[in-house]
Amino acid sequence: MAPVDHEKEHPVAAYGYAARDTSGHLSPFKFSRRATGERDVTFKITYCGICHSDLHLMKNDWGNSSYPVIPGHELVGIVTEVGSKVTKYKVGDRVGVGCLVQSCRSCANCEDNLENYCPRKIFTYGSNNLDGTITYGGYSNFMVCDEHFIVRIPINLPLDGAAPLLCAGITVYSPLKYYGLDKPGMHVGVVGLGGLGHMAVKFAKAMGLKVTVISTSPNKKVEAIERLGADAFLVSHDTEQMRAAKGTMDGIIDTVSAAHAVIPLLALVKTNGKVVLVGLPEKPLELPAFPVIMGRKLVGGSCIGGIKETQEMFDFAAKHNITANVEVIPIDYVNTAMERLLKSDVKYRFVIDIANTLKP
Amino acid sequence: MAPVDHEKEHPVAAYGYAARDTSGHLSPFKFSRRATGERDVTFKITYCGICHSDLHLMKNDWGNSSYPVIPGHELVGIVTEVGSKVTKYKVGDRVGVGCLVQSCRSCANCEDNLENYCPRKIFTYGSNNLDGTITYGGYSNFMVCDEHFIVRIPINLPLDGAAPLLCAGITVYSPLKYYGLDKPGMHVGVVGLGGLGHMAVKFAKAMGLKVTVISTSPNKKVEAIERLGADAFLVSHDTEQMRAAKGTMDGIIDTVSAAHAVIPLLALVKTNGKVVLVGLPEKPLELPAFPVIMGRKLVGGSCIGGIKETQEMFDFAAKHNITANVEVIPIDYVNTAMERLLKSDVKYRFVIDIANTLKP
Repeated sequence: MAPVDHEKEHPVAAYGYAARDTSGHLSPFKFSRRATGERDVTFKITYCGICHSDLHLMKNDWGNSSYPVIPGHELVGIVTEVGSKVTKYKVGDRVGVGCLVQSCRSCANCEDNLENYCPRKIFTYGSNNLDGTITYGGYSNFMVCDEHFIVRIPINLPLDGAAPLLCAGITVYSPLKYYGLDKPGMHVGVVGLGGLGHMAVKFAKAMGLKVTVISTSPNKKVEAIERLGADAFLVSHDTEQMRAAKGTMDGIIDTVSAAHAVIPLLALVKTNGKVVLVGLPEKPLELPAFPVIMGRKLVGGSCIGGIKETQEMFDFAAKHNITANVEVIPIDYVNTAMERLLKSDVKYRFVIDIANTLKP
Repeated sequence: MAPVDHEKEHPVAAYGYAARDTSGHLSPFKFSRRATGERDVTFKITYCGICHSDLHLMKNDWGNSSYPVIPGHELVGIVTEVGSKVTKYKVGDRVGVGCLVQSCRSCANCEDNLENYCPRKIFTYGSNNLDGTITYGGYSNFMVCDEHFIVRIPINLPLDGAAPLLCAGITVYSPLKYYGLDKPGMHVGVVGLGGLGHMAVKFAKAMGLKVTVISTSPNKKVEAIERLGADAFLVSHDTEQMRAAKGTMDGIIDTVSAAHAVIPLLALVKTNGKVVLVGLPEKPLELPAFPVIMGRKLVGGSCIGGIKETQEMFDFAAKHNITANVEVIPIDYVNTAMERLLKSDVKYRFVIDIANTLKP
């Protein structure tokens, strides 16, 4: 089989940054996208957030990457063209695309607005399109996507700070809702204060919850409380602090993907408490039956969110003026940004200024 | 400190069977119980079920037994006396006591009718009473208990078959309700077909669910389907059967207390599926984050039930004519019964005929 000519694969010329091999190094890349279909929305990308999974896919850490990888699933911009059957968007609208660009649209999950759990969902990059071509993400100049997977970015939210809501935001908003951890007065713990964790603090506070950040880094305390508005802070290896907080929380959003113990988290929650994993540790966690049974506790998971709920999250964010804390970078800084991301050296999300810095 | 004189510890003479040491051997034992207090109900015990945890406590497997141990927390009988402030029961009523005889009555769990999760709950046997004396269970001639912890046995349920509902029954009924696995048409798996499992099948069928029994023993299939009314049967080590059933269940009630893998059970449930532990494996289970997150699944627990819910369960059981399948035995057979229980050689619960076979 002849190698794919990415510039001629589709009719419309596009450009972006791609990783070509497991080094993960990103460099300028010319490719192409489909013409605007009758149900498609095409938009000029202005900003794209950098998610930690971009790094994993670029380096093929999960073993399923197809190169070239053009990462990016937190992309926002301005509509430039809509297909003849598009009803919800028009040229000039502020829109975004998150982790998904398509799903089967007919399974029980899709019918339940849970496209994110559809077994045939298509990810925004590194996935196979229905025509067999590879999907390309938001480190690029424009996007074409079925209007069903487009969300509207409310006018009062700046596009750069709004971009990370498309993955980091919905990833923590959805479990707060699904697991019923959204009732004013509840007490929720947030484990890890990175891109996901800082969004969890903001959403939980806006829902009227008491929020305790749980972190390995004592030096994040001031930031968590004074800048992000958390109510309390626990250093996870401080046994005295952890003991004192036992049985005080209704639930925990655990954003950590490094190997870590879930047992101390189970101790922090009350009867009926819920520990929800949204980070993805590679190895199985140890789950002791005793506290789970004796306290009717649970360990659950959650993965991004459906399109309807993603829009609801944006509307909630608009009402409460919630955006991510971002460091906006030019595209030619992206490899340095990745190195810093590996060291968690960012508060709290890098966002690439595509419109002003990505050139053909 | 002088050894306790169990015959004179309380004012009213009583007799039963007790284990005196870690051999777990049960033999006739004279002791005493308190006089009927103003909020107490006293009843003659007619039957008492044998629960697997009786065996653990008798042998001090959990390291917290105080001898003598008079086991039994599935006791039923006929009221013989009530205190002056008792309002719900009268002499002649058919009543029962389950795993609990007291709780703090003022914590958030108690106020929420979840005495079973009260941190100061007092178990029916082997626990410390408020006065420091040890609680004695149902392998005995009569019981005295605060009316709050008494439940009424509906008239159409035979007392022998009703006794096991007080522990085995509520242990599986409560999680079906709490985890929302009680909606007609749902599909629930039941892992393990012993005392708990066979009750789970009966309750789930009465709720209108499709029920699949999952067991290591292929020879339980006919029994599960033809006698208990299960819809399907899976042999857990048959990879082909397990593969074919992937993603078909809304939830699973896992009654197994031996070490076993939870990963294959997570595969059996759909998106939003719930795996609920009610057995108590000693070692932590392995919980993989990937299927939990990608399918928004959860592993939770549940421990018996509150008194209000236990009464609701009895009313539900009465409506659907549900009792346990029992083998009624004389008290002097109890040590042999324990040996058979260890080998799972009972269908499905031993119940001791106290009234006719326990003599002073």
